[in-house]
Amino acid sequence: MKRVYNFSAGPAVLPEKVLQEAAEEMLDYNGSGMSVMEMSHRSNVFEEILHTAEQDLRELANIPEDYEVLFLQGGTSLQFAMIPMNLMRNGEADYIVTGFWSKKAYIEAQKYGKINKAASSEDANFSYIPDCSDLPISNHSDYVHICENNTIYGTKFNQLPNTKGKVLVSDLSSCFLSEPFDITKYGMAYAGVQKNVGPAGVQIVIIRKDLIGKVMANYVPSMMKYHIHSEANSLYNTPPAYGIYICGKVFKWLKSIGGLESMKRINEEKASILYNYLDTSRIFKGTAKKEDRSLMNVPFVTGNLKLDNTFIEEAEAAEFVGLKGHRSIGGMRASIYNAMPVDGVKRLVAFMRDFENHYASSNYTRK
Amino acid sequence: MKRVYNFSAGPAVLPEKVLQEAAEEMLDYNGSGMSVMEMSHRSNVFEEILHTAEQDLRELANIPEDYEVLFLQGGTSLQFAMIPMNLMRNGEADYIVTGFWSKKAYIEAQKYGKINKAASSEDANFSYIPDCSDLPISNHSDYVHICENNTIYGTKFNQLPNTKGKVLVSDLSSCFLSEPFDITKYGMAYAGVQKNVGPAGVQIVIIRKDLIGKVMANYVPSMMKYHIHSEANSLYNTPPAYGIYICGKVFKWLKSIGGLESMKRINEEKASILYNYLDTSRIFKGTAKKEDRSLMNVPFVTGNLKLDNTFIEEAEAAEFVGLKGHRSIGGMRASIYNAMPVDGVKRLVAFMRDFENHYASSNYTRK
Repeated sequence: MKRVYNFSAGPAVLPEKVLQEAAEEMLDYNGSGMSVMEMSHRSNVFEEILHTAEQDLRELANIPEDYEVLFLQGGTSLQFAMIPMNLMRNGEADYIVTGFWSKKAYIEAQKYGKINKAASSEDANFSYIPDCSDLPISNHSDYVHICENNTIYGTKFNQLPNTKGKVLVSDLSSCFLSEPFDITKYGMAYAGVQKNVGPAGVQIVIIRKDLIGKVMANYVPSMMKYHIHSEANSLYNTPPAYGIYICGKVFKWLKSIGGLESMKRINEEKASILYNYLDTSRIFKGTAKKEDRSLMNVPFVTGNLKLDNTFIEEAEAAEFVGLKGHRSIGGMRASIYNAMPVDGVKRLVAFMRDFENHYASSNYTRK
Repeated sequence: MKRVYNFSAGPAVLPEKVLQEAAEEMLDYNGSGMSVMEMSHRSNVFEEILHTAEQDLRELANIPEDYEVLFLQGGTSLQFAMIPMNLMRNGEADYIVTGFWSKKAYIEAQKYGKINKAASSEDANFSYIPDCSDLPISNHSDYVHICENNTIYGTKFNQLPNTKGKVLVSDLSSCFLSEPFDITKYGMAYAGVQKNVGPAGVQIVIIRKDLIGKVMANYVPSMMKYHIHSEANSLYNTPPAYGIYICGKVFKWLKSIGGLESMKRINEEKASILYNYLDTSRIFKGTAKKEDRSLMNVPFVTGNLKLDNTFIEEAEAAEFVGLKGHRSIGGMRASIYNAMPVDGVKRLVAFMRDFENHYASSNYTRK
């Protein structure tokens, strides 16, 4: 069996232990005589899987009872419409635009109300997080929306914005469960699980219960109302059951390594190995502003397109995969999510050093 | 390893061969060194999985090039809104109501236009399919909607309705790929895969390309526009990749047993074993009208609530699971989807005979 070092930005590497258990249980989950893929979502055995996943997530992230946890479908892209459809009361909201995804959220929301761009870092190709300590948040704003970790640009809000008392709504997809977070600072936090938690096709929404209201607009599909999913405990329709089962296993794995505090320490170790190297390399250079760097996604370039491509090719041949930057910006990106072992980052840096030694002296031409 | 006979209505039994392969490939798909859950959806290896799944489905169901095949999220419940949002031109449609799901579709569609109930079988608890040879279809109707196989009530349209020239839109979820179907008779056919094809969380939409138009209403979320998914080849956002991979394996399995003609013969054999027994049993009775019976879902009762429950309990103890009828109607239901082996149905009937011999003579009281 071959295993590569997978630096893909999502779907992404999962803990080997989780995959091993899933393989072992594929034809017979826990003596049920069925795969989790084959079980009725109304069966006791699946309801136990769903309930345990929710409880473990609540425990890991310290989510109090006044927040609802929902497991939904449709991805973050569907949330971009669901959020304004559900949370608009005054018909106005503020969006902070710090990358590709937060811009998509900002554009989609415009269908449903007056949307203010409270801040943006587009002027410098989203390489930084703007100062959000004193933004012109509207008095009528129903919420302030951010994308907390920008997968493509490798930046992260290392301090939450001052929302001037308005509800904070945050897309946590690419940093979800990578470190502790205080959910009571948010009205709603949401994450596609395919970066840090499980297979694509499950969307986790954590929302303060008092924000889940009746939806006024008649055109809103039933499937897009949080109150419908909340009342049905995520079983309004058939949920993405197998994905939820894998998420549950990842939650158990996180608990087994000591929870989010431990995870944070490991993630900081991995990130510092890679950033320390980038900061001293003669040919590689990180593209995000130092103070705003992400622990999860590390974009970098050589400054030479041909050399970038050579690096990606040679890395792939050496079984470091998924290092190509997002199609919208090019260059390289190493995503070092929770399940990437420290050793994977050390080996990547060793490989990059070799590459540097080989190419730096040759003034970017092949020897 | 234990395997039960799983008669669940969905999620439901999958071919053992498919599960075995999935287990073997869990940590390393085809030498990639990754699980399919871990792969970038933009990688060549996943694009090949997606492309092959689509091609195999096209081959199996004989889908011509003027139909688009989409792999989406959100389940059939999201389609209930997407269909009127996308297909309304005149703002009017006809719905034939033959069960729980077609009624939900009918109610949801009312948000988006004038919806006519062209026919219904609710007068007899949805136990039959109404005569649809000469319905009062509106001249302005954009489409006629049916649910072709009614999972809960065990009925099936064994003849498609006369739509008077209007586009036919059909929810095929619980009979999808159980027998050949002529897609050219439909404008659109759609199916949640968790009955006959794969794990919950993937929705297959087959739609005639000329029906995929720009959507006029401003409130329609981007994720709910067929043209957006079509232009992106089902990769507008991260698709439910692992589910699509399993569907692809089921398509290969169907091809290996000889395609949909062979599948139909096997399904007819299974259904006739069970229906022939029900028709002669002293205590069990099928609840659907004979001419309208489904090949896939077989609801039945004893006529005695206590005896129904005893049967479900004893069957479960004998490892025949998922036989409880839908919470909305009670009784029993055996779903005998593609992956249920003939032997499973024979054993179920043998068990039912034993039960009958044990209880019939005792006038429904335990000996």
